[in-house]
Amino acid sequence: MNSEEILKLLKKIGEGKLTPEAAVERLKHMPFEDLGFAKVDHHRALRQGYAEVVFGKGKTPAQVGEIVRAMIRHRESRQNILVTRANTKTLAAVKRVSRSAMFHPASGVITIERNKEITGKGTILVVSAGTSDIPVAEEALLTARMMGNRAEQLYDVGVAGIHRLLEHRILLSEARVIICIAGMEGALPSVVGGLVGVPVIAVPTSTGYGASFGGVTALLGMLNSCASNVTVVNIDNGFGAACVASCINRL
Amino acid sequence: MNSEEILKLLKKIGEGKLTPEAAVERLKHMPFEDLGFAKVDHHRALRQGYAEVVFGKGKTPAQVGEIVRAMIRHRESRQNILVTRANTKTLAAVKRVSRSAMFHPASGVITIERNKEITGKGTILVVSAGTSDIPVAEEALLTARMMGNRAEQLYDVGVAGIHRLLEHRILLSEARVIICIAGMEGALPSVVGGLVGVPVIAVPTSTGYGASFGGVTALLGMLNSCASNVTVVNIDNGFGAACVASCINRL
Amino acid sequence: MNSEEILKLLKKIGEGKLTPEAAVERLKHMPFEDLGFAKVDHHRALRQGYAEVVFGKGKTPAQVGEIVRAMIRHRESRQNILVTRANTKTLAAVKRVSRSAMFHPASGVITIERNKEITGKGTILVVSAGTSDIPVAEEALLTARMMGNRAEQLYDVGVAGIHRLLEHRILLSEARVIICIAGMEGALPSVVGGLVGVPVIAVPTSTGYGASFGGVTALLGMLNSCASNVTVVNIDNGFGAACVASCINRL
Amino acid sequence: MNSEEILKLLKKIGEGKLTPEAAVERLKHMPFEDLGFAKVDHHRALRQGYAEVVFGKGKTPAQVGEIVRAMIRHRESRQNILVTRANTKTLAAVKRVSRSAMFHPASGVITIERNKEITGKGTILVVSAGTSDIPVAEEALLTARMMGNRAEQLYDVGVAGIHRLLEHRILLSEARVIICIAGMEGALPSVVGGLVGVPVIAVPTSTGYGASFGGVTALLGMLNSCASNVTVVNIDNGFGAACVASCINRL
Amino acid sequence: MNSEEILKLLKKIGEGKLTPEAAVERLKHMPFEDLGFAKVDHHRALRQGYAEVVFGKGKTPAQVGEIVRAMIRHRESRQNILVTRANTKTLAAVKRVSRSAMFHPASGVITIERNKEITGKGTILVVSAGTSDIPVAEEALLTARMMGNRAEQLYDVGVAGIHRLLEHRILLSEARVIICIAGMEGALPSVVGGLVGVPVIAVPTSTGYGASFGGVTALLGMLNSCASNVTVVNIDNGFGAACVASCINRL
Amino acid sequence: MNSEEILKLLKKIGEGKLTPEAAVERLKHMPFEDLGFAKVDHHRALRQGYAEVVFGKGKTPAQVGEIVRAMIRHRESRQNILVTRANTKTLAAVKRVSRSAMFHPASGVITIERNKEITGKGTILVVSAGTSDIPVAEEALLTARMMGNRAEQLYDVGVAGIHRLLEHRILLSEARVIICIAGMEGALPSVVGGLVGVPVIAVPTSTGYGASFGGVTALLGMLNSCASNVTVVNIDNGFGAACVASCINRL
Amino acid sequence: MNSEEILKLLKKIGEGKLTPEAAVERLKHMPFEDLGFAKVDHHRALRQGYAEVVFGKGKTPAQVGEIVRAMIRHRESRQNILVTRANTKTLAAVKRVSRSAMFHPASGVITIERNKEITGKGTILVVSAGTSDIPVAEEALLTARMMGNRAEQLYDVGVAGIHRLLEHRILLSEARVIICIAGMEGALPSVVGGLVGVPVIAVPTSTGYGASFGGVTALLGMLNSCASNVTVVNIDNGFGAACVASCINRL
Amino acid sequence: MNSEEILKLLKKIGEGKLTPEAAVERLKHMPFEDLGFAKVDHHRALRQGYAEVVFGKGKTPAQVGEIVRAMIRHRESRQNILVTRANTKTLAAVKRVSRSAMFHPASGVITIERNKEITGKGTILVVSAGTSDIPVAEEALLTARMMGNRAEQLYDVGVAGIHRLLEHRILLSEARVIICIAGMEGALPSVVGGLVGVPVIAVPTSTGYGASFGGVTALLGMLNSCASNVTVVNIDNGFGAACVASCINRL
Repeated sequence: MNSEEILKLLKKIGEGKLTPEAAVERLKHMPFEDLGFAKVDHHRALRQGYAEVVFGKGKTPAQVGEIVRAMIRHRESRQNILVTRANTKTLAAVKRVSRSAMFHPASGVITIERNKEITGKGTILVVSAGTSDIPVAEEALLTARMMGNRAEQLYDVGVAGIHRLLEHRILLSEARVIICIAGMEGALPSVVGGLVGVPVIAVPTSTGYGASFGGVTALLGMLNSCASNVTVVNIDNGFGAACVASCINRL
Repeated sequence: MNSEEILKLLKKIGEGKLTPEAAVERLKHMPFEDLGFAKVDHHRALRQGYAEVVFGKGKTPAQVGEIVRAMIRHRESRQNILVTRANTKTLAAVKRVSRSAMFHPASGVITIERNKEITGKGTILVVSAGTSDIPVAEEALLTARMMGNRAEQLYDVGVAGIHRLLEHRILLSEARVIICIAGMEGALPSVVGGLVGVPVIAVPTSTGYGASFGGVTALLGMLNSCASNVTVVNIDNGFGAACVASCINRL
Repeated sequence: MNSEEILKLLKKIGEGKLTPEAAVERLKHMPFEDLGFAKVDHHRALRQGYAEVVFGKGKTPAQVGEIVRAMIRHRESRQNILVTRANTKTLAAVKRVSRSAMFHPASGVITIERNKEITGKGTILVVSAGTSDIPVAEEALLTARMMGNRAEQLYDVGVAGIHRLLEHRILLSEARVIICIAGMEGALPSVVGGLVGVPVIAVPTSTGYGASFGGVTALLGMLNSCASNVTVVNIDNGFGAACVASCINRL
Repeated sequence: MNSEEILKLLKKIGEGKLTPEAAVERLKHMPFEDLGFAKVDHHRALRQGYAEVVFGKGKTPAQVGEIVRAMIRHRESRQNILVTRANTKTLAAVKRVSRSAMFHPASGVITIERNKEITGKGTILVVSAGTSDIPVAEEALLTARMMGNRAEQLYDVGVAGIHRLLEHRILLSEARVIICIAGMEGALPSVVGGLVGVPVIAVPTSTGYGASFGGVTALLGMLNSCASNVTVVNIDNGFGAACVASCINRL
Repeated sequence: MNSEEILKLLKKIGEGKLTPEAAVERLKHMPFEDLGFAKVDHHRALRQGYAEVVFGKGKTPAQVGEIVRAMIRHRESRQNILVTRANTKTLAAVKRVSRSAMFHPASGVITIERNKEITGKGTILVVSAGTSDIPVAEEALLTARMMGNRAEQLYDVGVAGIHRLLEHRILLSEARVIICIAGMEGALPSVVGGLVGVPVIAVPTSTGYGASFGGVTALLGMLNSCASNVTVVNIDNGFGAACVASCINRL
Repeated sequence: MNSEEILKLLKKIGEGKLTPEAAVERLKHMPFEDLGFAKVDHHRALRQGYAEVVFGKGKTPAQVGEIVRAMIRHRESRQNILVTRANTKTLAAVKRVSRSAMFHPASGVITIERNKEITGKGTILVVSAGTSDIPVAEEALLTARMMGNRAEQLYDVGVAGIHRLLEHRILLSEARVIICIAGMEGALPSVVGGLVGVPVIAVPTSTGYGASFGGVTALLGMLNSCASNVTVVNIDNGFGAACVASCINRL
Repeated sequence: MNSEEILKLLKKIGEGKLTPEAAVERLKHMPFEDLGFAKVDHHRALRQGYAEVVFGKGKTPAQVGEIVRAMIRHRESRQNILVTRANTKTLAAVKRVSRSAMFHPASGVITIERNKEITGKGTILVVSAGTSDIPVAEEALLTARMMGNRAEQLYDVGVAGIHRLLEHRILLSEARVIICIAGMEGALPSVVGGLVGVPVIAVPTSTGYGASFGGVTALLGMLNSCASNVTVVNIDNGFGAACVASCINRL
Repeated sequence: MNSEEILKLLKKIGEGKLTPEAAVERLKHMPFEDLGFAKVDHHRALRQGYAEVVFGKGKTPAQVGEIVRAMIRHRESRQNILVTRANTKTLAAVKRVSRSAMFHPASGVITIERNKEITGKGTILVVSAGTSDIPVAEEALLTARMMGNRAEQLYDVGVAGIHRLLEHRILLSEARVIICIAGMEGALPSVVGGLVGVPVIAVPTSTGYGASFGGVTALLGMLNSCASNVTVVNIDNGFGAACVASCINRL
């Protein structure tokens, strides 16, 4: 039952075909989202819609291709499309649907850019500690850009060579939101957080070995950061960090 | 905005004071639970209401006393009242509100029985492994009874003396739902589950020491039970097990 | 030694061929399950027999084929047969034994339906949060059906889009038992449990990555559910959840 | 060595009293923050200075009193002062220093309000699941306010009674940043995150028992949130969540 | 129903007062342990009965006193009595029942020696690593002795001073069973196991701090012992180790 | 410096070529194991030598072949040879060295029987819970036999069908040592331990899924066994359990 | 059997009272440490003896007093004496034995300085992150000094205010060994390790709350340090860090 | 901006071409490491430069080849080059760049020796427990040698055969630093630490199975070592242990 149906129902009251009491009864049992919840959906579309996203892991190339086709056909919107955790087979399937699909092998991300409008107010800076953190960093960077943000990168500035980070303090100070990606001991967000006054989204990565426990050590380190402007997302979740950063950057 | 208000609104349409279109707009923004969600609340009351429950831990005796007073005054219903994780100080505060309050020191439960009606269809049997599991067992037993069930107990039938359990097979076979409480290795539900055809709600307890890890070992054991009619609730959650058992026993 | 043999023995006493004292001695050493334990077996057969089950994982296709052949030949009963955690090779082996075997690739379940009788009293509803939870959901759904239950599904109603769940409140309210399947934060059973008055069997799934720890996060979330009608089974144990649900649905 | 000193040094070159080469040597060994780092400090003061904060835990009342005295005396600024994790003894010591100190017993926070200016752009909404989460919620609320934000509260809207939350959707939609506090299964941020388009800072609390593991279950649940606008801080860290929220609210 | 009762029943058949068929029915429902399971109990008594044991923790002094009184009055046997995890209050209660009760403050064990017979075939040697392991060591030593074994001690021979252990190789070589108690890294059983040819029962202790995790580190170390004659019991379970050792020493 | 060298040294004293004082000095600095430690080695050989063992995992087939060749050539003893964690490739390499090598595919054990003498005093019974525990059970069984013990098996007697175990109580009662192997909840040793008076060596297995955590749940369950004659070895360590059992069986 | 006894034995050979062959036999069975192991002890004394140490935790004041008395009376050496984890009661007992005992309340260390000789070659620098790490830092500092080292401190230089650390780079560069103490995310050693070329001993502390897990997070962070000159000791083990640092500083 | 540039800037002041005030402004914004931080870099080069290191894991053979080519071409230094965690494919790529590259298959290390100078003062001894620890041991040994140290090995001296270790006490006593490598229970460093007076760097290895948890058990054991001269690095981190040992050996 949607707004039109409700309107019809209410018109019947106006026309005297239905008593108000009977209408109350019918409204009580009607699936309520039909009243106003379409707004919620709409709201979600507006909010997240700066990019259509497919989480590629666990889907066959054919399935991903179908979903992307639906996105392209179904919507009149010209939103960017993002497929995360994809591979070259997925790419082939997506290419068949959209020639403009581009694959980013370091992060396994496929992008279909249809809209170059910048809607974020400032720059999102993606900072990462080591070379092995780059896949997650690139996923964050591409997500941020596909969602309409200016996004810059600052890689390989781990805390054991603190001067490398300090050299780029101006870059740090120019960001409106910082995504900070690190594995191993996960200390980078604490240092970065201490150097800036903007929110820092920390992303632990599963790089490392032994007692890095697949990113748990970095995760715990970030949760215990002594810098008070640091929050944390799940291990390897570059996509999620960019979503939050994008969401902040539009405020 | 409740049903009366909606009725008023709809009457205005009938009276021509409001166009159907304007009414749709107003309905769209109205807090929707006022349409039908009161039913939900009512439903919850009906469903859980066979006993009013106060979780005593972390509340002062005075606070518990106030809540119980409100329960007694506010409702016309004659539901039983249950205070869990209470102590003698809480009892004193509750006694001031209701003379019929009874304290069960083994489990720290206070009961105010106002309704002796049995609404559960069969018997809930509370089985426990060791004497140190009795506080949790008693919490389950009293909760089950306050919620309108016939509930029996079978204590101290741990698996290292399997004949003690086997002696009571008739008792086991007569239950409609079994709550099975054990600490240490938590093996009792597997054995009991294998002997009966009814659902077994397993409750791990925090008794034990060393590698019992405050009930985690028992919890894990129960989750891995090789009997296929066993489900599990949180450590020491005798109350929760009895809620589920009661909920099953009314089906 | 079964009842007939005992009867024979006792008849000898009646006939004076055996002294009561000698009979006591013989009874003492007789394998006791022969007295009454056959009943247990029988009982188990009755209870679980609505479906014969083979846990396919770790068995060769040939082994599974042999077991299914024995089930078909040995029993006069016309119970349904279920092979869980199977693959297409297993299917081939089972097909050779029974042409009516059907494979369900999403869940890796093979079913041989021989009995369409519905013995469960109400409907078991299988609710799942995300598309990656569908394999476990389907295992639960098929198990429930093979065990003689009406079983319905409600998929992709995760809590981050709560309106999708709320839209189906009537479906939820019509179920007699609900199986609720979720990975990641495992929050769905709490929301569902709060909306209904029937038992909810929660199944954590191993989907997710990073700090989902192969389903441990969902498992812990479900064990700590603030809804009091929720119990939990092992990670990915759709089969077990359906067993318990079926067991409840026959009460 | 600050800017003035550097200026003096450089003037000596201009005056021919120092060779450029000697000056380079002296500059090389000078504590470098004196060049530009005072800016950092100043920046930190500006950034965090909307409130002076003392972490009360592990400090004696006398120590806290001394620190607060120094804050009041030393600075000409009229920033608000906040003491977290305090008790009535701490209060007595602080009262001796500032009569306007107020104690908030639920959260153990002491506030000295000296500046009522609102510098945050929108409203920070603090949402909490259960009554036992209120201490953490209040710590967040008071911190947000002391840091110059409009902050509202929405308590006791746990996910097992989802309609309580849905009733307040307008309140949710009006917030610029949401702090979402929950213990047990920690599911609230996922539901809230799905209803709004602004950043949600999730705070797990150590309430609960058994397999809640002192807040670890809630923490893990939040890190695995299926809502993409959720980030997480440490267990019970209401203060930290408000710092981040305040930092976002000034953007 | 015991043997006598069965005999009576069978005699009735012999006397024609009961048909064999009716007797079968009655036997089927009789608690089966009455047939032969009394033997089990008797067996348990014989097996464990070299000492009557009360686990003192979680029992009031009065309760312990009552249990000991029952042990003394009820049984004609002259078995030793052992109360573990007791304190001086428990002692007072036990002293009222038996003047010969002795308290061992290091381990919190109360012993009532009534039987000095040695039934174990060889010597049980209790080896411990550090002075803080002595409470557990003494619990093991006293348990072993109360259960009728010759038991010797070798304390403070931790692996970081390996010569202290090697000095006592003759003592080690003379034991029939060794109980090896250690906290921290729990390495002692590996070294001892490599020096002897008899079974070594390893007991981890909860001494230590930080990453000793209350004995978990020692427990894990012992489970991974590279000596192939080492088995392990729970943390701090000196009593259990002595039970197993005693059980082996009687073979 | 070996015994011969010491003898030479001492003879010099006898011959007056060396003062006793000088000899003491030289002895002080001599590598002490040369005095008597060969005895230790010899002792180890005697003790463990009933079977020569090669841990096959992590060794190439060629390496295993070489080690077995050395065992056969080097020693005059006719001890049995055991290769654990082997595969058919290893077998081929061993076959080249010894034609009598036999492969046991369920457990991946290769045996070369050269000595059929039984040196253990009683029977070692290997009890296992499920069919998936058989690889570990067979490793234990073969190890026990190769080490000169009579060893029997009792498989598939899990606790959820307790009557299957109880049927074999006579077999249980005839064993001198019991090895008890179980995965999932690991409850079998508690039940078996309660039925017998001999030592029970519990072996957790890594079978199961989800919250079985690769055998950790079974391990913890066994460490918390409420039967006092149970000790535990590492997960899947059938070999180690048989070593300890063999060591006990020779006492 | 000590050196004198061996001398006697060897003299008998010289005197012809014992054949060399018989002497070899007797030597073989003699506890070998009597030959040379006293040297080990002596060696240990020399090595560790720069300070006599009593671990105060778990010992009564009287016991600590007795041990210190023995240290003072028994040894002619004038080594410093250190009691760790002590309190004022312990102090009173130690004061009775030695008037020069000094108590350091921040760390709970008692020192009796008897020897001011500096035997370490360079300076040990103790660096700590937060004020709550000072107890552990002081334990390390006092231990280092009592063991004959020059030891300096650099406190409150956490990584979230990196300039505070960088200001003291000269101090860092002058140390021969650095002890680096931090709780929470434990990131300090990585930054310090990157700034210096000497070994850094990292000590995690149990400060923090929530997901700091009593120091485990800091411990894991340090083990995963991306600086290659960092090693780690147990949580809160300031004493141990100073032992290792002292050991390095004498090389 | 380097020293030369600063000099130029300061000269302009001397020449009157720049006011001191303008120079201060420029200095304030100059990347400060250009002042003195080049020293840091230089220092790092000096410190670590005894070997150029490439961490091979996660890099393609081509990438490793490129990095090694750059090392060879770019630097005039004749430092040794080390590639860790490499394989034969990596070797092929490196061989193309440098013919003198040698592959060490046990550890997966590639070395290019260009400098045989010994800069470490004493001997680094690498001690390992079992044959499966050799890969890590060899990584440590080769790293130590490539960094200019004399390094010796002592393998297969696990604690369950303590005499094997004691035989080599002279070797132990001659080392200046000891790297001690062990899996399973990780007890070796405690025993070694007790026998020597020099620092012992403990490396846990991921060998073992079941409750060895990929090296966690060994790691925890080492952190809890009762020997006070033991520090610990990450699991399998032979390279890191050698870095620290080398760093100590140059002091």
